[in-house]
Amino acid sequence: MALDDSHPDFVSALARGISVLLAFTSNTPEMTLSEVAAKTGLTAATVRRSLLTLMALGYVKQNGRRFVLTARVLQLGAAFVESMNLNQVAQIYLQDIVDVFHDASSLTVLDGNDVVYVVHIPSNRPARLRQHVGARMPAHGASTGYVLLGHLPDEELEAYLSGAPFPAFTDKTPVTRDEVRALCMAARENGYAIAEDAIGLGTIAIAVPIRDQQGRVVAAINCSADSTKVTRDKLIETRLEPLQRAAQHISEQLIRYPALTVSVLG
Amino acid sequence: MALDDSHPDFVSALARGISVLLAFTSNTPEMTLSEVAAKTGLTAATVRRSLLTLMALGYVKQNGRRFVLTARVLQLGAAFVESMNLNQVAQIYLQDIVDVFHDASSLTVLDGNDVVYVVHIPSNRPARLRQHVGARMPAHGASTGYVLLGHLPDEELEAYLSGAPFPAFTDKTPVTRDEVRALCMAARENGYAIAEDAIGLGTIAIAVPIRDQQGRVVAAINCSADSTKVTRDKLIETRLEPLQRAAQHISEQLIRYPALTVSVLG
Repeated sequence: MALDDSHPDFVSALARGISVLLAFTSNTPEMTLSEVAAKTGLTAATVRRSLLTLMALGYVKQNGRRFVLTARVLQLGAAFVESMNLNQVAQIYLQDIVDVFHDASSLTVLDGNDVVYVVHIPSNRPARLRQHVGARMPAHGASTGYVLLGHLPDEELEAYLSGAPFPAFTDKTPVTRDEVRALCMAARENGYAIAEDAIGLGTIAIAVPIRDQQGRVVAAINCSADSTKVTRDKLIETRLEPLQRAAQHISEQLIRYPALTVSVLG
Repeated sequence: MALDDSHPDFVSALARGISVLLAFTSNTPEMTLSEVAAKTGLTAATVRRSLLTLMALGYVKQNGRRFVLTARVLQLGAAFVESMNLNQVAQIYLQDIVDVFHDASSLTVLDGNDVVYVVHIPSNRPARLRQHVGARMPAHGASTGYVLLGHLPDEELEAYLSGAPFPAFTDKTPVTRDEVRALCMAARENGYAIAEDAIGLGTIAIAVPIRDQQGRVVAAINCSADSTKVTRDKLIETRLEPLQRAAQHISEQLIRYPALTVSVLG
C-alpha cells in the first residue's frame, strides 16, 4: 500500500493544501495569494481554494490581501506529540538532564537526511542554538544524527552517504563520505556520538540511542553544552552515564507507550 | 472571503485529510482503516485515499493493518512556531521566569473556547500539569483565559458566557456565567488574573496580557506554581512584576516580528 502522486488514489488537493500551509515560514509569515502561488508553484486558483478552505477550518487568517497562519495549526503537530504520549515517554527524563547540567536536551528521530526534534527542553543558560519541536537539522551535523545513521542497516547508511559531499555550516562540519561514515561507525561501536561545532560554533553535544524491547534503535537523545567551556572528555565523563540512564528509562516507557516505536520502525 | 463547507470553493478532500490526521490521539495512536473511518465519520474509501496520500507524503506510516503518524507531522505545527518567530519573540523571556521561580511558564492565545499553548517552558520542579505546544485548555479554567476573555469586546465576551454552565474539573472550577464574568472583569480591571485549582488541584497560576503597539491584547503569558506551597498573595507579590516585565519585552519584540499580532488580530 504505497503510491506516488501520479496514482489515481493520490489526493492532490490534500497534498497541495499541506504545501500551502508549509509555505509560511519565518521569512514569509504573511503572504498574498500570488506570493503563496509563487512559493508553492501551484496555480493561483488552487492556492485560493486551499487558503479559503484552511480559513474556513480556522488554520489561516486573512489580513487585508495577506494571509497568515493561526495558532490552531499547532493542533496538527500536537496530534503527533499526543499520539506518541511524549510527555510520559520522554519529557520528564530529559528535564532531569537539563536540571542537573543546564544543557539543552532533545529526543530526535531520523526523517530523510534530517534529524527531527521530537522533544526539546531548552537550556536554562544563554543558549546558542534555540530549537523547538518539529525543527530539523541535517543529520551529518548532529550528535543524534551519527547515532541514528550509525544504527541503520549498512545498505541504508551507504545510500545516505552516497549524497556526499554534505553542506558545511562551520569549518568543523564533516562533509565527506569518509568523515561522516567514520563518525557513524564510531557511534555504532561506542554507543554514543559527539558533535562539536559541527552545525554552529560554540556547541558540543553528546547523544545515545533509544532502543525498543528488541534492541532496535528507534530514536536518540542528546544534551548540548557550550564547547568553549566543556571539553569532549569532560562531556563524556559527566553526561554519558546520566544520558544512558535516561535512555534506559525512556526505553522502559516505550513498552507502555509503543506508538513511537511503531512510528519509527513499523 | 469566507466560506463554509457547502461552498463550491471548499476543498473537502483537504478538510477530510486533516481530520484523518487529527483522529490520531494518545488513546488511539495506532488505528486500522476502519477505526479511522469510525472515528472521523468518513467513508472507508475516503479514509483509504487520505491515508495513502498522507503515507506518500511521509506523514503516516503503516504497520500491518494499522496506521500511525510519523514525526514529519511535527513540521506542520512548526510552520506556525517558525512563521511567528516564537523563539525570538517569547521563549527567552519565559525561560527567565522559569529560571527564577521554577514555575512552568506559557504564552497562550484564545481559539474558540480554549486557550492554546503557543510557547511552553516546563517547570523544573515535579510538575502536576505537563503541557506541550499546541495543547489546549478550556479558557474558563485558565489564568490566561480570564485575561484573554476579559480583554475581548463586550459582545464577544457575552457570546462566550452564553455557553455557560462550563464543565467543572475540580470543585473550584468556576462554572456559572456570573463566576466566569467576574474573573474576566477582574482581569480587565487589574491587568492580571489568577486561577487556583481550577483545572486540577495543586496548581495556581497568574497571567498578564501581551499588548501590541496599539495596546490591543494579542496573547497572555502566565506562570504556574504549586498551590499547596504558594499563596495567592505571595504569587502576586513575587511573580506579577517579573511577568509584566517579560510581557513588556515580548510586546517590544512584536514590533520586529509582527506576525503573531496579525495572526491574532488581523
